[in-house]
Amino acid sequence: MIYQFIPQLYYNTIGQHPPILTIRDGDTVITTTVDARGWDINGESAATRGNPMTGPFYVEEAMPGDTLAVTFESITPNRDWAWTTNMLAPAVIEPYVAASLPPSDIVRWTVDVSQGVAYLKEPSPGLTELKLPLRPFLGCFGVAPSNGQFISTATSGEYGGNMDYKGLVAGTTVYFPVSSKGALFYLGDGHALQGDGEIIGTGLEISMDVRFTVSVQKGKMIGWPRGESDTHWFCIGNARPLDQALQHATTEMYRLLQEVFGLTSSEASLLLGQAVEYEIANMFNPAYSVVCKLPKSVLSQLSYREKSVQ
Amino acid sequence: MIYQFIPQLYYNTIGQHPPILTIRDGDTVITTTVDARGWDINGESAATRGNPMTGPFYVEEAMPGDTLAVTFESITPNRDWAWTTNMLAPAVIEPYVAASLPPSDIVRWTVDVSQGVAYLKEPSPGLTELKLPLRPFLGCFGVAPSNGQFISTATSGEYGGNMDYKGLVAGTTVYFPVSSKGALFYLGDGHALQGDGEIIGTGLEISMDVRFTVSVQKGKMIGWPRGESDTHWFCIGNARPLDQALQHATTEMYRLLQEVFGLTSSEASLLLGQAVEYEIANMFNPAYSVVCKLPKSVLSQLSYREKSVQ
Amino acid sequence: MIYQFIPQLYYNTIGQHPPILTIRDGDTVITTTVDARGWDINGESAATRGNPMTGPFYVEEAMPGDTLAVTFESITPNRDWAWTTNMLAPAVIEPYVAASLPPSDIVRWTVDVSQGVAYLKEPSPGLTELKLPLRPFLGCFGVAPSNGQFISTATSGEYGGNMDYKGLVAGTTVYFPVSSKGALFYLGDGHALQGDGEIIGTGLEISMDVRFTVSVQKGKMIGWPRGESDTHWFCIGNARPLDQALQHATTEMYRLLQEVFGLTSSEASLLLGQAVEYEIANMFNPAYSVVCKLPKSVLSQLSYREKSVQ
Amino acid sequence: MIYQFIPQLYYNTIGQHPPILTIRDGDTVITTTVDARGWDINGESAATRGNPMTGPFYVEEAMPGDTLAVTFESITPNRDWAWTTNMLAPAVIEPYVAASLPPSDIVRWTVDVSQGVAYLKEPSPGLTELKLPLRPFLGCFGVAPSNGQFISTATSGEYGGNMDYKGLVAGTTVYFPVSSKGALFYLGDGHALQGDGEIIGTGLEISMDVRFTVSVQKGKMIGWPRGESDTHWFCIGNARPLDQALQHATTEMYRLLQEVFGLTSSEASLLLGQAVEYEIANMFNPAYSVVCKLPKSVLSQLSYREKSVQ
Repeated sequence: MIYQFIPQLYYNTIGQHPPILTIRDGDTVITTTVDARGWDINGESAATRGNPMTGPFYVEEAMPGDTLAVTFESITPNRDWAWTTNMLAPAVIEPYVAASLPPSDIVRWTVDVSQGVAYLKEPSPGLTELKLPLRPFLGCFGVAPSNGQFISTATSGEYGGNMDYKGLVAGTTVYFPVSSKGALFYLGDGHALQGDGEIIGTGLEISMDVRFTVSVQKGKMIGWPRGESDTHWFCIGNARPLDQALQHATTEMYRLLQEVFGLTSSEASLLLGQAVEYEIANMFNPAYSVVCKLPKSVLSQLSYREKSVQ
Repeated sequence: MIYQFIPQLYYNTIGQHPPILTIRDGDTVITTTVDARGWDINGESAATRGNPMTGPFYVEEAMPGDTLAVTFESITPNRDWAWTTNMLAPAVIEPYVAASLPPSDIVRWTVDVSQGVAYLKEPSPGLTELKLPLRPFLGCFGVAPSNGQFISTATSGEYGGNMDYKGLVAGTTVYFPVSSKGALFYLGDGHALQGDGEIIGTGLEISMDVRFTVSVQKGKMIGWPRGESDTHWFCIGNARPLDQALQHATTEMYRLLQEVFGLTSSEASLLLGQAVEYEIANMFNPAYSVVCKLPKSVLSQLSYREKSVQ
Repeated sequence: MIYQFIPQLYYNTIGQHPPILTIRDGDTVITTTVDARGWDINGESAATRGNPMTGPFYVEEAMPGDTLAVTFESITPNRDWAWTTNMLAPAVIEPYVAASLPPSDIVRWTVDVSQGVAYLKEPSPGLTELKLPLRPFLGCFGVAPSNGQFISTATSGEYGGNMDYKGLVAGTTVYFPVSSKGALFYLGDGHALQGDGEIIGTGLEISMDVRFTVSVQKGKMIGWPRGESDTHWFCIGNARPLDQALQHATTEMYRLLQEVFGLTSSEASLLLGQAVEYEIANMFNPAYSVVCKLPKSVLSQLSYREKSVQ
Repeated sequence: MIYQFIPQLYYNTIGQHPPILTIRDGDTVITTTVDARGWDINGESAATRGNPMTGPFYVEEAMPGDTLAVTFESITPNRDWAWTTNMLAPAVIEPYVAASLPPSDIVRWTVDVSQGVAYLKEPSPGLTELKLPLRPFLGCFGVAPSNGQFISTATSGEYGGNMDYKGLVAGTTVYFPVSSKGALFYLGDGHALQGDGEIIGTGLEISMDVRFTVSVQKGKMIGWPRGESDTHWFCIGNARPLDQALQHATTEMYRLLQEVFGLTSSEASLLLGQAVEYEIANMFNPAYSVVCKLPKSVLSQLSYREKSVQ
């Protein structure tokens, strides 16, 4: 079934809010998200600022202990401008330099979807020629957290949330551990593009048209969000500081190698030691996000690989 | 001038040891390095274990306050085997999982330079088909540190040292802040290949043939190692934890954007926020290393760029 | 008014649950708490494990933007035994030593309130003479967090929660920033005594009789929990890693010195630099807790002090 | 033997410099130290700034693998003024508050040794009445580090160094692991008093008269500095971030409990969990310092205690 869903209300926490739509394993949803300040396709304020979410979508078959897979078929900016801040976050530079920075302002960018580029609306002299390629993704999405918690969309955890990982573009499938009946999937906080680490605190913040399809893996338990792109398998860890976020991501990948590929501790270590890749997704939110990746070109060499690795 | 230099002794600290060769700006050196345990081209123990260094090379023109540029023309394994450990370092996984890991062993890999691949000499069943492409680099190199210090080659700092950054392959130029007369350049700790983070504590440890050329930038002061590849400019920060290593790397890139490209705080922030890339070089040594990168394709769009960016 | 309240149900999240009792500024409550596993005065399971809370108490006058003061008149163990784990948490020791530790078990202690001591019920040979003085406090208490969140009692934040600070004994007053109507105060997780840092993950876990009195400071806004004992003023920061927890605690104390004592940045720095004391409350929970303290004997020397410092 | 030694030169690194005096096990030295900027008893510049050290003292019997014990009989300011900075270090407060602080200045304090107090020479209005009790100690002292390193007196490690721990007052004995022949003991960086954490980057910096006695424990190997006061045994860990410094300190105490008191893992954990105390010595230097303490009143209850616990 394909649903076209126009949200009327938005939540600023992820938790067991009443579902806005019930769907089933295999269903596809076409919907929209407002930007991080709640500004919609028309640039009008449609929701309270702070990553307002579209959702929750209740997935009929999903039960605690299952895994929810979400495949993004498309993530497309639905207006022609975005906003960003313009000053490095103090966490990413040396303290005495951070103390010298002027306060941050909001600036506007033109987003040209047909050309696939973005540029500053009113560039200062040093950046007049700057044009960056679009790479749209959602900064914040996930399922209701464990133990009946309702958690602000400013942060993230095992359930996903505000991970701000620039790799989560259309074509990617993301897997979440289900903690409550129906999984309760939320999405929002679109970025037209972003550097590693979200180090000024924003990507190019924009409203989006999104199309995604869900599927439920019954009885499959995972610890942290996992994902698959054309080229890689990856796991996401969300925590402070970076060291701990990296530990969660690496541990989840280590488990994946054991469960899916049947590797021993030593085999997983040998493989990860020489082939692992990391990305720093964000170093701005209350929980930082680090991604642990392995190329499919390497995983395809493993002796015990299964047909479907997840 | 091109020097062919065969080392007879090796140091396990980086500091103001007596020079083994005096060279000049523009000179090229062809030499060899032993592996991290001091094993040489013949697999014989030629030096005390713990990243024994070839050097120091005294560069005639280099004075405190200058920058030393080192371009690697070639870094080539000179034997057909390497060794690694086989267990994840406790720092990179969750503590309770770390506690479950067996102790680490040393394993051997075959290194086939003509085919450009490496594989385990005696693979266990899960890894019999694994072949990884070679990407040789030096794990540890740099100049004498400030204030007359002699620092163990286990660690790293503003002067370089044991950064274990897999991106420092042949073709790269690396820039160091000079703290003592003659700069006193050291090199060693070759890796035939390595994943991000050196998360099992080693790359494929191997002895190397190395060819490099030095040049001195008089009166150019930098704070941390900088580098240039075909595709990127980058800066390296060395510290614990990862957060602080990233702060140093980002701060050095921020300064580079101000000095070389004349960007304001706001322009540098806007650029970095949407275009920065990070690599986690190592999360094993006493100081971790994080690399902050910008693509040349982006830097080439800056209005005020100089012909020679360094 | 003095209320005697016997709880019938317990919550494992802190948030906007329906109040179990409505009280007013100045009222006193006499109630009980179960231990961290939900075991009550009789050692029977009365609630779901994971720091089940007594509450919430709705305080009539409290509104967002106010401060709620809670004074503990008494915190007394109401049974004669407690339990602890028996193995150091991996976060507090070096990783390679952590990997060598056996798994943790639960052990029982005798708690003798009349003698004011605790000792192991079945001590192993090395600890047969060990008797430690009781110092009963509550590990977890606080008010509903901001933005409608419901947060697990495993962790802590600006709203209080699972801070496990051994200094919060009877006689102490603690101040919380109010984020929702009625403040919604919760309490539980009694410890008969505990070392700094809660480094085995528990204190002497026990059920308690508690008597406390609330008061509301209208229009007084604070950022993090503050407190007052006979000898000190203190502020509590909750975050990971320790560095960040300490930053929150110090910042809150810095603000207190500015607001209450009228100190300038320089005066506050001079005072803190030479007179500050820190305590590591816990280094076990998802958020660590650090306490920043100043002796009243020092604060009483400040020129601009107010009669009532809060 | 009691030596009276007047230093003529000072070092800004700790390492294998030529000894200035050879002493023996049991000998006592009466000497002086200049302050952190090299200013001496007369306020004149006698050494290069940056914690210039008196030493090294070569201890005849000390060999690698031994422990050097240093007992401070007296540490007394030998002039009537000290200096401090006057602004919080950015590492100890929230980044956005750090960015708001004015730059730091140097201010002078009067140090009245006969009254045992210090006060600002020219106090601003908020601090006119402030008088703080003296508690003189040395911020930086230790033995030559391992592997022939020479390390800046700005930082610290297993060998001691710039730990800035306010507990190291006269009456204390400190134990260091010996890494080179003669141990090579250095001392300096006197503080007339200091708060926890050295959070403005200085204590009351002052020149000192010092009297200390050394003894060598043959074949006794320790990992990190240990110490003994009238009331406590303690261990010091030096690293970044605080979490890691605490891990080293706790691990060293855990080893002490096993070696000296014969405790099992479980017994050491039970004891530490309920009786440990921590102090944050400094959170300013390149390596932070955390102290793990146990009261002698608790240790005296252990069944297997030795007469001499070290």
